[in-house]
Amino acid sequence: MTESATFGFQVEATIPGSAARAGRLATAHGPCLTPLFMPVGTQAAVKALGPDDLRTLGATCVLSNTYHLYLRPGAETIAALGGLHHFMRWDRPLLTDSGGFQVFSLSHNRKIDDDGVTFRSHIDGSRHYFTPERVMALQEQIGADIIMVLDECTPYPSDEAYNRQALRRTHAWAARCRQAHGATGQALFAIVQGGVFPGLRQESATYLADLDFPGYAVGGLSVGEPKALMHAMLEVTTPLLPATKPRYLMGVGSPEDLWEVVDRGIDMVDCVLPTRLARNGALLTRAGRLPVKSPRFARQDTPIEPGCDCWTCRNFSLAYIHHLFRTKELLAYRLNSIHNVRFLVRLADEIRQSILAGTFGAAKAAFLATYQPSDPAVAREQRARWLVAHGRGGLVL
Amino acid sequence: MTESATFGFQVEATIPGSAARAGRLATAHGPCLTPLFMPVGTQAAVKALGPDDLRTLGATCVLSNTYHLYLRPGAETIAALGGLHHFMRWDRPLLTDSGGFQVFSLSHNRKIDDDGVTFRSHIDGSRHYFTPERVMALQEQIGADIIMVLDECTPYPSDEAYNRQALRRTHAWAARCRQAHGATGQALFAIVQGGVFPGLRQESATYLADLDFPGYAVGGLSVGEPKALMHAMLEVTTPLLPATKPRYLMGVGSPEDLWEVVDRGIDMVDCVLPTRLARNGALLTRAGRLPVKSPRFARQDTPIEPGCDCWTCRNFSLAYIHHLFRTKELLAYRLNSIHNVRFLVRLADEIRQSILAGTFGAAKAAFLATYQPSDPAVAREQRARWLVAHGRGGLVL
Repeated sequence: MTESATFGFQVEATIPGSAARAGRLATAHGPCLTPLFMPVGTQAAVKALGPDDLRTLGATCVLSNTYHLYLRPGAETIAALGGLHHFMRWDRPLLTDSGGFQVFSLSHNRKIDDDGVTFRSHIDGSRHYFTPERVMALQEQIGADIIMVLDECTPYPSDEAYNRQALRRTHAWAARCRQAHGATGQALFAIVQGGVFPGLRQESATYLADLDFPGYAVGGLSVGEPKALMHAMLEVTTPLLPATKPRYLMGVGSPEDLWEVVDRGIDMVDCVLPTRLARNGALLTRAGRLPVKSPRFARQDTPIEPGCDCWTCRNFSLAYIHHLFRTKELLAYRLNSIHNVRFLVRLADEIRQSILAGTFGAAKAAFLATYQPSDPAVAREQRARWLVAHGRGGLVL
Repeated sequence: MTESATFGFQVEATIPGSAARAGRLATAHGPCLTPLFMPVGTQAAVKALGPDDLRTLGATCVLSNTYHLYLRPGAETIAALGGLHHFMRWDRPLLTDSGGFQVFSLSHNRKIDDDGVTFRSHIDGSRHYFTPERVMALQEQIGADIIMVLDECTPYPSDEAYNRQALRRTHAWAARCRQAHGATGQALFAIVQGGVFPGLRQESATYLADLDFPGYAVGGLSVGEPKALMHAMLEVTTPLLPATKPRYLMGVGSPEDLWEVVDRGIDMVDCVLPTRLARNGALLTRAGRLPVKSPRFARQDTPIEPGCDCWTCRNFSLAYIHHLFRTKELLAYRLNSIHNVRFLVRLADEIRQSILAGTFGAAKAAFLATYQPSDPAVAREQRARWLVAHGRGGLVL
């Protein structure tokens, strides 16, 4: 149980009347500025992107996943090959999730007890066993800069009694992870759970804060619950986490979410959204998602979004990308992913700059006024709030 | 009917006792050194590669295809978007095949008469009509530096009478293409046909040579006939083509073929082989094809081929590429394609250097002595020749 000598977090600016903050993470592989969007490289690669693309689009910390890497190619293999940084040729920071979420969402015939969890591989049905100690050893072999405790993720919806029981286990496992973590220099983050129950969330934040981790994640959100509930959970959680430690909301990353969760005290997020949307032909713009397959782009000799500084927008027309996607050319997935990931990396930086400049509130309102979320319920809700804020609430039915 | 002011070809060196030669093509988009390997971007993209990758790996002329571009996105669309170079952001030379081969190999319910060919799209079954004049107009709209006549491609095997009839049409169409070609500055290449019949091949070469095209292709080979037959056809064809004009063998491009066809007077080849093999996990090396999925590469922290200067080999391990391919990560297709296309681009340059240095024969023998072709019949044949050449013919059963 050793704190990293190299890991650190410094808050650089805060916003009165908001929990938003700008900060700086230090890791053995260089700094990350917060708010931070982290692209996801589940299997040691961000889908369709090379490390050259990630570097060009300004990614700093990339996520990978212990569950997936453990199954293929194996944590031992990665260790034998010099660790994950060398394996995937990424010399900037890396974070591995513990695999808790995947054990609970992907694997079959899962059996959980206080000691750990038995599960079957989603690939070949083979049987495996994870304990907090095992997951620490695996993540130490893999060698990311930031690693996560093993937690029990509850589905949404699930009742309070079950969530209470799962939380008890999550807390015990967090303490065991803390204990088992060796002197590797890796920063171990705790994960707050508690479903959609404010009391459990508060209990979890308080308990884990007492254990004094170098960073805190919030897990079990964005799993199907209404956005308002997610926001409410953040509002009761982040104030109880140490102000001097980074706060990471797991699996969240739509453009509108980014503003909302930063407003509620989150410093780091990760999400597969930009790369998944890219492969489905949905491109992120400041006006909302753009369906690249639409025939209206067939002759559009302009970038996806004028003013976007990504490599795709600096080099290719919407017409060409439309053609590539329509003809299923693999290059389409790369170009779309570069644009979408850059969009979120850049948006996180824009949020950061607004915090540093003290204009976060106005910047958030301006972004949300023109950004059209794809979820119609969210879009309606957002538009209503905007109209109210602008004294036009009466127009909303 | 206008010759291009910018297009030209110059033979720089020849080899006594061989038809091999090194030369230089001039085009409006820069030079190409020959022997030249051209990667194939059928639908305005070389599969899995961006123009950045193609540039880095040293590609000069890239192929695309009139049949495919005509169907999607349409030649008019490409013209409206500023032509193919601008559309795909490739500022080096481009060549479009006329689509003759695709009409005869991909499309359904084809009806051919002396005027042209009616066919159905392989995508949606829609009906289309190509004439020599139409195909010239389409290629002029698309705007490649080198364009091809419409020809009738015969399958292998097919009898001499049918090949004679098809050849008569191919020749008439070549003359009409020559006549219809406008003052676009594009270099129009003729295509020698004639199946596997030496007399027809000679007749075709002679007839087309008389029409005086800026370049000559040899079509209808590498369509299933034995390699020896392909070599024999080249041996009767290339001596009858003008020595001052470039000679392009269509659709051929395995490493062993490259040496053999250059030896028989070919200057340019194109092939989907390197990108197709890449997507199937077969990597080209000087020893033969390497199956990247093989478990023996799981921990191999060395490049695909030590000494290879491609971006993939300079940056990634076989272990990582093995992992990416096994987990179906899209990045695998890009990394494999970069390596395989670079392998052939570099091999063409190695052949060129050996011609310039006067060491072609020895260089060819040295390459073929260690390269193991994937086709066992070819491998056997090659080994036998090598043993004979080295006075060990008696060892072959």
